[in-house]
Amino acid sequence: MAVRAAVAGASGYAGGELLRLLLAHPGVEIGALTGHSNAGQRLGSLQPHLLPLAGRVLEHTTPDVLAGHDVVFLALPHGQSAAVAEQLGDDVLVVDMGADFRLRDAADWEAFYGSPHAGTWPYGLPELPGARAALAGSKRVAVPGCYPTAVSLALFPAYAAQLAESDAVVVAATGTSGAGKALKPHLLGSEVMGSMTPYGVGGGHRHTPEMIQNLSAAAGERVTVSFTPTLAPMSRGILATCSARAKPGASAESVRAAYEKAYADEPFVHLLPEGQWPATASVYGSNAVQIQVAYDGAAGRVIAISAIDNLTKGTAGGAVQSMNIALGLPEDTGLSTTGVAP
Amino acid sequence: MAVRAAVAGASGYAGGELLRLLLAHPGVEIGALTGHSNAGQRLGSLQPHLLPLAGRVLEHTTPDVLAGHDVVFLALPHGQSAAVAEQLGDDVLVVDMGADFRLRDAADWEAFYGSPHAGTWPYGLPELPGARAALAGSKRVAVPGCYPTAVSLALFPAYAAQLAESDAVVVAATGTSGAGKALKPHLLGSEVMGSMTPYGVGGGHRHTPEMIQNLSAAAGERVTVSFTPTLAPMSRGILATCSARAKPGASAESVRAAYEKAYADEPFVHLLPEGQWPATASVYGSNAVQIQVAYDGAAGRVIAISAIDNLTKGTAGGAVQSMNIALGLPEDTGLSTTGVAP
Amino acid sequence: MAVRAAVAGASGYAGGELLRLLLAHPGVEIGALTGHSNAGQRLGSLQPHLLPLAGRVLEHTTPDVLAGHDVVFLALPHGQSAAVAEQLGDDVLVVDMGADFRLRDAADWEAFYGSPHAGTWPYGLPELPGARAALAGSKRVAVPGCYPTAVSLALFPAYAAQLAESDAVVVAATGTSGAGKALKPHLLGSEVMGSMTPYGVGGGHRHTPEMIQNLSAAAGERVTVSFTPTLAPMSRGILATCSARAKPGASAESVRAAYEKAYADEPFVHLLPEGQWPATASVYGSNAVQIQVAYDGAAGRVIAISAIDNLTKGTAGGAVQSMNIALGLPEDTGLSTTGVAP
Amino acid sequence: MAVRAAVAGASGYAGGELLRLLLAHPGVEIGALTGHSNAGQRLGSLQPHLLPLAGRVLEHTTPDVLAGHDVVFLALPHGQSAAVAEQLGDDVLVVDMGADFRLRDAADWEAFYGSPHAGTWPYGLPELPGARAALAGSKRVAVPGCYPTAVSLALFPAYAAQLAESDAVVVAATGTSGAGKALKPHLLGSEVMGSMTPYGVGGGHRHTPEMIQNLSAAAGERVTVSFTPTLAPMSRGILATCSARAKPGASAESVRAAYEKAYADEPFVHLLPEGQWPATASVYGSNAVQIQVAYDGAAGRVIAISAIDNLTKGTAGGAVQSMNIALGLPEDTGLSTTGVAP
Repeated sequence: MAVRAAVAGASGYAGGELLRLLLAHPGVEIGALTGHSNAGQRLGSLQPHLLPLAGRVLEHTTPDVLAGHDVVFLALPHGQSAAVAEQLGDDVLVVDMGADFRLRDAADWEAFYGSPHAGTWPYGLPELPGARAALAGSKRVAVPGCYPTAVSLALFPAYAAQLAESDAVVVAATGTSGAGKALKPHLLGSEVMGSMTPYGVGGGHRHTPEMIQNLSAAAGERVTVSFTPTLAPMSRGILATCSARAKPGASAESVRAAYEKAYADEPFVHLLPEGQWPATASVYGSNAVQIQVAYDGAAGRVIAISAIDNLTKGTAGGAVQSMNIALGLPEDTGLSTTGVAP
Repeated sequence: MAVRAAVAGASGYAGGELLRLLLAHPGVEIGALTGHSNAGQRLGSLQPHLLPLAGRVLEHTTPDVLAGHDVVFLALPHGQSAAVAEQLGDDVLVVDMGADFRLRDAADWEAFYGSPHAGTWPYGLPELPGARAALAGSKRVAVPGCYPTAVSLALFPAYAAQLAESDAVVVAATGTSGAGKALKPHLLGSEVMGSMTPYGVGGGHRHTPEMIQNLSAAAGERVTVSFTPTLAPMSRGILATCSARAKPGASAESVRAAYEKAYADEPFVHLLPEGQWPATASVYGSNAVQIQVAYDGAAGRVIAISAIDNLTKGTAGGAVQSMNIALGLPEDTGLSTTGVAP
Repeated sequence: MAVRAAVAGASGYAGGELLRLLLAHPGVEIGALTGHSNAGQRLGSLQPHLLPLAGRVLEHTTPDVLAGHDVVFLALPHGQSAAVAEQLGDDVLVVDMGADFRLRDAADWEAFYGSPHAGTWPYGLPELPGARAALAGSKRVAVPGCYPTAVSLALFPAYAAQLAESDAVVVAATGTSGAGKALKPHLLGSEVMGSMTPYGVGGGHRHTPEMIQNLSAAAGERVTVSFTPTLAPMSRGILATCSARAKPGASAESVRAAYEKAYADEPFVHLLPEGQWPATASVYGSNAVQIQVAYDGAAGRVIAISAIDNLTKGTAGGAVQSMNIALGLPEDTGLSTTGVAP
Repeated sequence: MAVRAAVAGASGYAGGELLRLLLAHPGVEIGALTGHSNAGQRLGSLQPHLLPLAGRVLEHTTPDVLAGHDVVFLALPHGQSAAVAEQLGDDVLVVDMGADFRLRDAADWEAFYGSPHAGTWPYGLPELPGARAALAGSKRVAVPGCYPTAVSLALFPAYAAQLAESDAVVVAATGTSGAGKALKPHLLGSEVMGSMTPYGVGGGHRHTPEMIQNLSAAAGERVTVSFTPTLAPMSRGILATCSARAKPGASAESVRAAYEKAYADEPFVHLLPEGQWPATASVYGSNAVQIQVAYDGAAGRVIAISAIDNLTKGTAGGAVQSMNIALGLPEDTGLSTTGVAP
C-alpha cells in the first residue's frame, strides 16, 4: 500500500524537485501540496515541468491540510519548520528539508541563524557513520544542507582514516537554484550568465557549522573549515573542492584506500577511477555523488572533490533516501544514479 | 520476461540518452553496446553520467555482437544503418534512430543525402494519424528527426483541420547536442555560449523534406516549409516557432478547438492552458511535448509553438515509445512527462 | 571642447551600457547621473563593471540636476520621458531611449501602450532612408527599440527594392538584458539558463507597430508583421530571422544585389560574405550589425537574418550614433564594430 | 608615428583578443597577421567579431613576413616561441604570450613542459615589485599565464606584508576560452554548459611553478601552492579563490591595510570596498582586476579573491600593458577598466 505524502512548500525549487522524485517513486502517493503566497494557484503555472501534477491547486499550510498523511515533507524557509512540525502528530514521519533541526550545538544555531534553537533530529546523510541506524524507524529527519552533503562526503573518509590535519579548506561552486526562487538582482539571468562570483566569504555561510559538526565527528577532534561558496552560471550542481594538509605518513595509496573502503558498498557514492574527475553535469538530476581524491606531495595536501546535484542528492533526493530508510523501504527506491547529460 | 536490447552507437549523445531511458525501463534488459572508434573503451569514460553501466566495455558493431537480442537500436551516422540492418534477421525489432528510412520519396532522399535510397520503414511518430497502426507489431521502425518531431506536432492539427495555407514558415532553436559529439570549431563551448546563430538557411537542412512529407499528408496537399534552424546556447531542447497564413474562416476559437481535439488523448503532448507558453526547460529530459497555439488576426496567421527535448522525445524517447508500440507494451512504459527543472 | 552629457536612469542596463560607451567617447564628458529608487547609492555597487565611475553617486531625476548639460539621455521606463523632456530647454539635445516618441501614429501608441501619445521625434536609426537628414542638428531624438532595429535593418532593403510581399514573418531571439533589471521570476538565472521560451506571441509585443511603421515606409505600402520574440539563455544579443514571400521576379541575385547596394557605405552594417551567417557573439558589445540574406526558391521566400547587441546598436550605441549626427560629430565617434568574442 | 605590430598566431583566442585591443590602441598600426594551418584564409571567417580586419588574409609565420615591424607578438603554442624569436632581430620588441620564457628555473621548466629551457625574459606583470623597471625599454617580454596573473595579484600583498604562512591553497574557475580553440570532446558546448569540473588536480597544472615563483619572491621564502583549476560554463573569466594560514598577529585590519597599500596607485587593480566581491562579469573584456580580501579568524586564514578576464588582463591586455611600458608609452594606452556587462 502506498505511503501518502504531503509537501509543504511545493512552489519552490526544493519542493518541485521533491515532487519530481516522488512522481517516480513506486511506493508513494502524492497528497496535499501547500504554498504560502501561491496558495490557490495551479501547480502547472508554478512548476510547468511537472505535467502529471499540472492541474493540482496549492492549499494553505495548515494542520488540517497536512493531516491524514504518512509522511510530511517541509520545504519551508529556515526557521519555519518547527512551528509546523509541532502541530503534526508523533506518528507521522516529518522530513524537514530546512536547516532548523540539523545542528546539535544550540550556540552554533543561534550564532548563525539568530533565533532560538528548535532541537536536533536524526541527520539525513545516511553515508555518515551511524546515520542509518539513527534514521531507521525515526519519525523525524533533518535533511542536510546541500553544501554540507557535498563537503562531508568528500572529506570524511580522510578524517575517519586520520590522514588529514584539522584545518580544512573548501571552495565550492553552486548552481543558482541553490539560492532558491528569491527575487534578488544578483540572481537575474543577465547577472549570473557568464559570471562567477563568491559570497559569504570568510566564515559567514550558514552551512559552515554543519560541515564542522560532521567532519569533527569523523576526525574525533575539532576540525576548522575555511569555506568559500561561489555562484556559477548553471542552474544545478555543486562542485566542492576540499583539501587539508596531509598527516605524516599519508600517501597517494593510503588516501585512495581510505576512500575505496569508505564507499565500497554505498549505492549512491561513486569513487571515480583514477584519472577521471567529477563533473556536475554527470550527476544532473540524479542522486549520485561523484568523488575523486588526490595526494599532492609537493604541497603536502589531500584533495578531495565531489560533484552532486544540489537539488537532488543535496536536498530532495537526500530527503527521499532518508524517508526510505525511516520507513524501512529499500534505500534506493525511486532514486536513480543516472544523470541527465549532456 | 525482459526484452533484450542492443545499442549500436552507444558512445554518442543519442545512444547515451537511449541508455538512460532503457535503464529506467522495467521491461528491458540492456545487452550489447557497440561503438566504432571507441570500441574497447569503458562506457564510464565516455558516458560518465550512466553510472550503472560505467563498467561496460564497448564492442565492435558486428552481426555476431548484435545477434541474440530482441531489439537492436541503431544510433549510427546517417547512411550507415541500412548495411547493419540487412544483417539482422526479420524477427528482430530494428529501431533506426538515423535518417535512412524516414523518407518515402527516393528523389528527396537522394537530393538531400546524396546516396541511394535504402527504403522506407514505419514512421515512429505515433501522434500522427495512422502511425500507431503501422508501428504495432512492426519489426522495423524509423525514428523521426528531432526537428520534424517538433514541427510536425506543432502544425499538423492546423493542417488536418484545414485552417492553414500551404506555405509554412518555421524558425527553430536547438540545443547543441542536436549536432552530436562531432569535433567542429563552431560547437566549442567558447563559441556557443552567449551566442545565437542560424545554419542551413534557405531550404538546405536535411530535415526539411521530412517536415514537408508529414505536413503534406496532414493537409492533403503539398505544403512548402521555409525552415530556419538556429543554434542556441543550451545543451538540450528545441523550441519550434511555426506559422502559416490562416485560411479564410479560421479564428482563435477554431484553431484552439483543432488542437484540443488533436491532443485530447495523447499521453505525451500537452496543449498548454491559454496564456502559458512552452519552455524547453520544462521538458528537459522528458518525453513530453509542450504546445501552444495562437491566431494573429492582424497578421492573418496561425502560430503554433512547440518545445521538446531533442534527445528525448526528439530521438531516444521517441524510439522507446515506438518500441513499446511495436512490442505491444503500454506506450508510456519507461517514459516520463516530468522534466528536470529548473 | 567636450560635450557635457547627463544620464537619467543610470542604474539600469540601458543606462549602464550608455555610460560604458560614453566613457570611451573622446568628445563627451559625463555629467549628472540620476536614478529613482537608487538615488543616493554609489554607482560602483550598481554597475560594478564601470570602474572609472565607481565613486559616483546617483542623484534624483530633477530639472535642477539635469540642467547645465549639452545632452541629456533618458533611460527611463516607457511613459516617463515626456514629463522629464518637457522641463528641459529647447537648446539641449534630448535623446530618449524609451518608446515615448518613436511612433508616428497616435492610435498605434494608444493601442499598444495605453496612454496618450506624447508626440514623434526624429527617429534614431540612421541607416533608414532619410533618417540622417532628420537627425542632423535636431535637438530631439527617439532611439528605436532593439527589435525594430534588428528587424528593420534586416528587411528594409528587400522592401525598398520591391522584392518582398507585404506579409513579413519575424522570429527573434533576445538575450535577457532586453527585459531589463526587473525582478520577475521568469528572468531568474535558474529559469533562463538552458531554456528557450517565447512571449508576446500573436501580435502583442509593443515593438510590432514600430516594425510595421519602418517596413511600410520602405515598401510604400502597408506591411504586416507576424512577430514572435523568444527569450534565449544569454545576457545580450538579438538574432532576428525575418522572411517574406518573394515577389515575382525575385532571385538570389536580385536579393543579394539589393542588400549590397543598401549597405555598401554603411559604417555599422556588415553584409556578410555568402555562406557566412550572423552570430550574436560576433557583435557582443559592438555597434555592428551583421546581416545575411537568402532566397529560398522551393519555399518562395526571401530570408534575411540580422544579429545585433541589443544593448549596444539596439539601444545605447544607437543613441550615441544618433547623438553624433545630431551634434555634427563624425558618426562613428566613440563607437566600435569590434565585438568581444569569444 | 604609429608602432607597427605583427601578430604570429592570429587565428586563436589569444591572437584574436590581442587584435581587438590593438584595433583600439591609438599608437599601433596592425601589420602582418600569420597562422599555421589557417594561412591563406580570411580573418573574417576565423574571427568574425573583428569586422575592421575581416578582409585580411593570414600569412605563414616566416621571418620575411614578420620582418619590418616594431613589435612582434607571439601567440603560439607552448614551445614554439623560441624558434621564431631567434630569427627576429634584437631591435624589435618581441612579446611572447606563450610560456616559453616565464620561468627562471630550468628544472621547473623541464619538469612541467618536458623540453629544454629556452631562457627567461622580463616578466610582464607590471604590478609585481620590480617588474616595471625590468620591462622599461626591454626588447623581450614574457607575458604571464592567465592563472598566475590572477593568483599572484590576489596573494602577493599578503606575502609581501608577511601576513600569510607559506602554504597557499588556490581553487580557480576559468572560462573555456582559457583552453583555446583545441578540438577536444570535453570542450564542446554540450559538455561544458551546465557543468563544473576540475582538471590538473594535485599539482600537475603547468601554471603552478609560475605561481610559486611569484609568491616566493614576494614572501622571501619558498611558498608552496596547492592549485586546483576548474572549468566553468562561461566563455571568459577567471575567479581565483586563494588563501593561506594567517601568520600570528595578522588581523582583518592589517590584511586590508596591506592590500590598500599595495594597490593604491595601480591603474588596473581595483580593491573593492568592503562587503563587495569580485565577479568575472564585471571585468569582461577589460584589463581590470577586481580583488577583495578577508580574514577568517575562526579558520585562521587570509582569503583573497580576484577576478580577471583571462583573455584580456590574463593574456592580451597584459601583453599590451607590457608593450606600452617597454615602448615608453603611457601604461594604460589603449586599455580600459570598463567591463562589458551584463
